[in-house]
Amino acid sequence: MSLSLSTLSTPALLLERRVLGSNLDRLAARATALGVLLRPHLKTAKCGEIAALAKDRGPLAGLTVSTLHEAEYFYARGHRDLFYAVTIEPGKYARAAALVRAGARLTLACDHLAMGAALAAAGAELGVRFPVLIEIDCGDHRSGLSPDDPDVLALAQILQAGPGTELRGVCTHGGQSYAGRSVADHVATAEVERAAAVGVAERLRAAGLPCPVVSVGSTPTAMYAAHLRGVTELRCGVYMFGDLFQAAIGSCTEADIAISVLAAVIGHRRERNQLLIDAGALALSKDLNTSQLQPAQRTGYGAVATLDGVRLPGLTVAGVSQEHGQIASVAPIDFARFPIGTRLRILPNHSCLTAAAYDRYHVLDGGPDVVATWTRTNGW
Amino acid sequence: MSLSLSTLSTPALLLERRVLGSNLDRLAARATALGVLLRPHLKTAKCGEIAALAKDRGPLAGLTVSTLHEAEYFYARGHRDLFYAVTIEPGKYARAAALVRAGARLTLACDHLAMGAALAAAGAELGVRFPVLIEIDCGDHRSGLSPDDPDVLALAQILQAGPGTELRGVCTHGGQSYAGRSVADHVATAEVERAAAVGVAERLRAAGLPCPVVSVGSTPTAMYAAHLRGVTELRCGVYMFGDLFQAAIGSCTEADIAISVLAAVIGHRRERNQLLIDAGALALSKDLNTSQLQPAQRTGYGAVATLDGVRLPGLTVAGVSQEHGQIASVAPIDFARFPIGTRLRILPNHSCLTAAAYDRYHVLDGGPDVVATWTRTNGW
Repeated sequence: MSLSLSTLSTPALLLERRVLGSNLDRLAARATALGVLLRPHLKTAKCGEIAALAKDRGPLAGLTVSTLHEAEYFYARGHRDLFYAVTIEPGKYARAAALVRAGARLTLACDHLAMGAALAAAGAELGVRFPVLIEIDCGDHRSGLSPDDPDVLALAQILQAGPGTELRGVCTHGGQSYAGRSVADHVATAEVERAAAVGVAERLRAAGLPCPVVSVGSTPTAMYAAHLRGVTELRCGVYMFGDLFQAAIGSCTEADIAISVLAAVIGHRRERNQLLIDAGALALSKDLNTSQLQPAQRTGYGAVATLDGVRLPGLTVAGVSQEHGQIASVAPIDFARFPIGTRLRILPNHSCLTAAAYDRYHVLDGGPDVVATWTRTNGW
Repeated sequence: MSLSLSTLSTPALLLERRVLGSNLDRLAARATALGVLLRPHLKTAKCGEIAALAKDRGPLAGLTVSTLHEAEYFYARGHRDLFYAVTIEPGKYARAAALVRAGARLTLACDHLAMGAALAAAGAELGVRFPVLIEIDCGDHRSGLSPDDPDVLALAQILQAGPGTELRGVCTHGGQSYAGRSVADHVATAEVERAAAVGVAERLRAAGLPCPVVSVGSTPTAMYAAHLRGVTELRCGVYMFGDLFQAAIGSCTEADIAISVLAAVIGHRRERNQLLIDAGALALSKDLNTSQLQPAQRTGYGAVATLDGVRLPGLTVAGVSQEHGQIASVAPIDFARFPIGTRLRILPNHSCLTAAAYDRYHVLDGGPDVVATWTRTNGW
């Protein structure tokens, strides 16, 4: 039986190839206009075919990954220049070194003096020189050193002098852009992100240290940066798929959302004005990020669309248990329109989290037929 | 290199075999005392070895599953009597029938007249008679017919008369027990759950219909039911592992939590009094169920324990991004105690969701060594 929207087992993860392609094109055009290389973050897609499509779009600096498992996976698929954008700890040195010895240019992130010293020593013991970027906190307040922290220069000197490390530059992630609610916000955050990274790069160079790489990025800032002077590469990931949150904060439109979850109606709760579907907490994730937005933008655990991808206004997945989703509506639901077995698409709040529940993408090309099946790599 | 708490790649899912065994023993003893068979729900564990351990504990009615994928997986491992405890829709009939034709006794759930009629017709077309339980809503308000809904009897008649269905009885799930906060609450909910199912069973029998199966269960009600007269089988799942939420509502103690996530410290944020770990939204899930509890019971995205499993008071995972967890504390953190690379265990808020991110359990037996690796089956 050929796979299509009417024959796939539900729940299933759908990917619209043309929308993905258009999202990849848009970021490639942004990078060209901004005069930087792209280093797309594959944490969202975790898929060899999608990395290849991104590579086709133009000159990449390489790929960004969020786990060593992703690094190993993409290296095995021919991607040699990889940035592991999470600060590394000693339990991962041997695995990282094995990739470097195999021929990968695996760049690591560091934001701590003791971490840098340990890495420099370990690289030497393991017979490699790890390329390292110093991570800067430009206002996201997750990880990284403050741009004006005296440890920045001290860490740079440790990494440059260390026998097992090679100072390559700086990176930062303007993740505070997710708190932005307008284009003006994103433009401003993009400049904060750029200025923080470029400012540190200039200080390193002024101290006689090398800094060939200045790496920045988040999807909202990548979309709206006015310029990226002094930056060498742009990293972001969720732009490939988009999601309801990114649409709400203006990084994309709802038409740019490339993935959705195919689900089937498994129950009617007329007295509660609810439809039940077979996509619950595992199929959608429990990410409630749109709950922090304006009331009209809140989508529970996801928004509801027809098989054609047309959003059904007012219908959202208001509750989930492990395998049940409860679709609620502000208006009375026309139950006759949704008999048991009706198939719907659920648009994700947060693509990275929703996609992670699945081992494959069922790829569509604007119609109901599955034109390809692409596997994802999950786990660590 | 042999696997142990000091050599496993992080994040990793740990399972304490003795704690699991004790949890399985406790429920088996409860079932014996209550005079019912168990039908453990494998939605939490999704693991052949764990199903086998549950089976070793005493007479089971069979297994409960939350997806047809689980049904196929456990059938392939020799479990023939399976209850798929989510109402079925037409897109799943062929897959369910294939299992029945292969020899599985696969019981289905139904709570809708049109669903029952469609199932009865489809079973005949597919050459099988599906055993079916009518799902009753005893107050959870997720799925099921109200006990006094006239459709209950009409549906029973459809299923009994249908050429492709066989009426087997009733099931209900007292999921409202998760709102309970005391033993008295759980005792009361257990009686509501029991009485709803038994009452419907009596009505079916009074109407001359068969009702050999009266199936109830949720972990809190299973632990505290005063009696289960009229019930034939007890279903629950999270009792195998426990979690912080179940401990908070009294279904287990924290010592009964059998799984945890091994994580490593990857950063210090002294100015924010935070440790960063390499377990974030994907490794822990975004389930914030303990946030609805009393302030002292709220654990963010998980609570923090040493490698020995000793809880570190006041330390919780206060924030997550995809691969970062931010451990915060009410008291100042002694950063010298947690150098980069320090390994910790994160206790899960909700075991079902946390475990679903992993493809295997690293099994421990009270010490640091991994004594077995058991695979999980995820997806649909």
